[in-house]
Amino acid sequence: MAAREGSSSAAGKIAVVASVAVNLAWLATYIHRRYFGGNYGRSDGGEIATVEPSKGKPPVTEHSVVNLDHGDPTLYVEFWRGTGDRATIVIPGWQTMSYFSDLVGFCWFVEPTFEREVRRLHRLVGNAVVDGYHLLVGTGSTQLFQAALYALSPAQDGSPMSVVSPAPYYSSYPSVTNFLNSALYRWDGDANFFGGDTCIELVCSPNNPDGAIRKPVIKSESRKTIHDFAYYWPQYTPITEAGDHDIMLFTVSKCTGHAGTRLGWALVKDVEVAQKMVKFMELNTIGVSKDSQLRAAKIIKVVCDGYELSPPSEANRLFHFGQRKMKERWSRLRATVAASDIFSLPNEISGYCNFVKENVTSNPPFAWLRCHKDGVEDFEGFLREHKILTRGGPKFGVDEKVVRVSMLDTDEAFNMFMNRVASLK
Amino acid sequence: MAAREGSSSAAGKIAVVASVAVNLAWLATYIHRRYFGGNYGRSDGGEIATVEPSKGKPPVTEHSVVNLDHGDPTLYVEFWRGTGDRATIVIPGWQTMSYFSDLVGFCWFVEPTFEREVRRLHRLVGNAVVDGYHLLVGTGSTQLFQAALYALSPAQDGSPMSVVSPAPYYSSYPSVTNFLNSALYRWDGDANFFGGDTCIELVCSPNNPDGAIRKPVIKSESRKTIHDFAYYWPQYTPITEAGDHDIMLFTVSKCTGHAGTRLGWALVKDVEVAQKMVKFMELNTIGVSKDSQLRAAKIIKVVCDGYELSPPSEANRLFHFGQRKMKERWSRLRATVAASDIFSLPNEISGYCNFVKENVTSNPPFAWLRCHKDGVEDFEGFLREHKILTRGGPKFGVDEKVVRVSMLDTDEAFNMFMNRVASLK
Repeated sequence: MAAREGSSSAAGKIAVVASVAVNLAWLATYIHRRYFGGNYGRSDGGEIATVEPSKGKPPVTEHSVVNLDHGDPTLYVEFWRGTGDRATIVIPGWQTMSYFSDLVGFCWFVEPTFEREVRRLHRLVGNAVVDGYHLLVGTGSTQLFQAALYALSPAQDGSPMSVVSPAPYYSSYPSVTNFLNSALYRWDGDANFFGGDTCIELVCSPNNPDGAIRKPVIKSESRKTIHDFAYYWPQYTPITEAGDHDIMLFTVSKCTGHAGTRLGWALVKDVEVAQKMVKFMELNTIGVSKDSQLRAAKIIKVVCDGYELSPPSEANRLFHFGQRKMKERWSRLRATVAASDIFSLPNEISGYCNFVKENVTSNPPFAWLRCHKDGVEDFEGFLREHKILTRGGPKFGVDEKVVRVSMLDTDEAFNMFMNRVASLK
Repeated sequence: MAAREGSSSAAGKIAVVASVAVNLAWLATYIHRRYFGGNYGRSDGGEIATVEPSKGKPPVTEHSVVNLDHGDPTLYVEFWRGTGDRATIVIPGWQTMSYFSDLVGFCWFVEPTFEREVRRLHRLVGNAVVDGYHLLVGTGSTQLFQAALYALSPAQDGSPMSVVSPAPYYSSYPSVTNFLNSALYRWDGDANFFGGDTCIELVCSPNNPDGAIRKPVIKSESRKTIHDFAYYWPQYTPITEAGDHDIMLFTVSKCTGHAGTRLGWALVKDVEVAQKMVKFMELNTIGVSKDSQLRAAKIIKVVCDGYELSPPSEANRLFHFGQRKMKERWSRLRATVAASDIFSLPNEISGYCNFVKENVTSNPPFAWLRCHKDGVEDFEGFLREHKILTRGGPKFGVDEKVVRVSMLDTDEAFNMFMNRVASLK
């Protein structure tokens, strides 16, 4: 009996040890794959290998060029790393193969989950009215900008619609408007010098490049507007009212930092304008990547959940993370500029933010930096000699002594930029 | 001693049972989440919830309309379900946030893994030369078609480039060419009736809608070509040679069936043309969704692995699956048409396929169905009355007595179509 028990007991111990060992081995493998190998366990013992993604721009080193020409929003990578698996998207091979997303909704190529999360986000932030608006999705807001031009053109007499915006205006507006030499619309320059009545005015607020808060400047009744709200988010500017304009454009690139996902959306009041924009999207790209839409839906869901369903820590709150980072960078830049004799920046703007419920200062996504140094005519060229790539004033319709500098890049790039700028006399 | 052993043994048994129970419970939860809940286990005990994807068109029922107007490639869902997790893509929240994919390659927004898998696919199939070609990615091949028009226009004297294709031509060519009323190019109709010399000829082969194998028909030296090779894959047509034309367009929509991913690519011989196409992509959409590129890379990798690294079963071989399905459908359709007095189809084409190493007949993605019934002038309208949606000849530049019918939809839709067609006298 004792012998039997002993034998059984030994077998039991071995079984316990074996079972625990199997568990531990699985756990170790799982953790390794999850956090180091980028692979995921499969129930059949195989693996779902991820394909190797690109890494963006190469890291900045002491001797490398710092590229702050584009608003590459890599500042946000840190936040998303902190969310662990919460924002991970998993797409099986057989999913969303059809062209069609929603045959009963307003727009057949919008993923319903994406639309739901976007409307939820606007209700959370309070930066735009969504009730009564049609929602369209685009391959970035740039495509929707063109869809809006198409929908609002030509002028009633059939002539090309004039497209204008007050200088300094976003450098892409002229080229994107004109590159196909369309007879429907044409770039007509600085809205402050526009002599006509009928036009489309592009209202970018906060404005790219200078962060100014804008209203339309053309007073004519035959002026139409497109509101570019890419930067109307709490990390950049106080949310003072819910936008309720005819066409409002947004993009995940500058809201959550997912530029590579190429996803924007438009809120459009008039049904016929919205239908013409859908038509543009059909002809230009037969809709929009469903993979991007599902990923953006997940990302935006995590942002909303972070405020509505999670403890109020910065690790859960994207806009608070962004606001802190931007504020730190702006404080350092303003201090450096104040200590220099040769640079200046636009004055700080502040206001009561309905989202964070307090007075905050703006932290624009770009620094609109002016140089007063004698002998420097081409400021972009001057900075390039010092291994800093920026975008010069002429591309925004103004003079050469001012440049746009991205404030959205990595800490390494921003620090290197600060070091180099501080050394310039 | 016996008592101690007994007690220890009992504890051991409990531990074994508990450990096994934990394992089984985990396995059950895992399998449930994986196959029923669409969720994935997380190491911290939480979950990666997938966001709810769209399901495409509603299922066909006995009384519903069968929509075969578009070439919605849902035939392929069955194959991809059969691949289990092998084609699943997992994208963490912090991945590919930058605009930039490849700053050292030819095109900064192409994901290197996508490019590598596409080149591998062409080498496997033998349908296009890739060495010496620049590879560009687009939001579907429709966008790349426009990029190519932009790159090849205007004519040398600055006038709009004429864009032509022999009728029947793909119904989107005229509208996509003309919708922005560009001064760079304009649709000039049926290439067979084109009187000029300078033009862009669109060569779609196999041709959408009629499956014909095509070469350029314009003989002038100032004729440029864009080869639309959306359907030049082994499931549709024998691969008789590796294309080596100036611009060749492809898309995952019709190759693997992932239309919702909106991903196409172009192989371009001339570096300046390729650079102008990149410029178009920058201005139109600032590149292409990296999520779609990574997903397409994974999908194409699974296709190539299925031929190069796996046992030769149909479950691993996309083109063999597609060829069998298409052949079955075409046999049934040809039998039904042969038994009818009122319908006809283009003659079957066959040839030696370098990929499958045998003689095969073509199985075009669309049936180009003609009606000879007295009194039926508008064949599309006639079929619509019988709850079959197709696309009528006039959209392809020909008469009303012929329609294009998608052969790529679900089995349910195809079967219902066959039943309804067989009943027409």
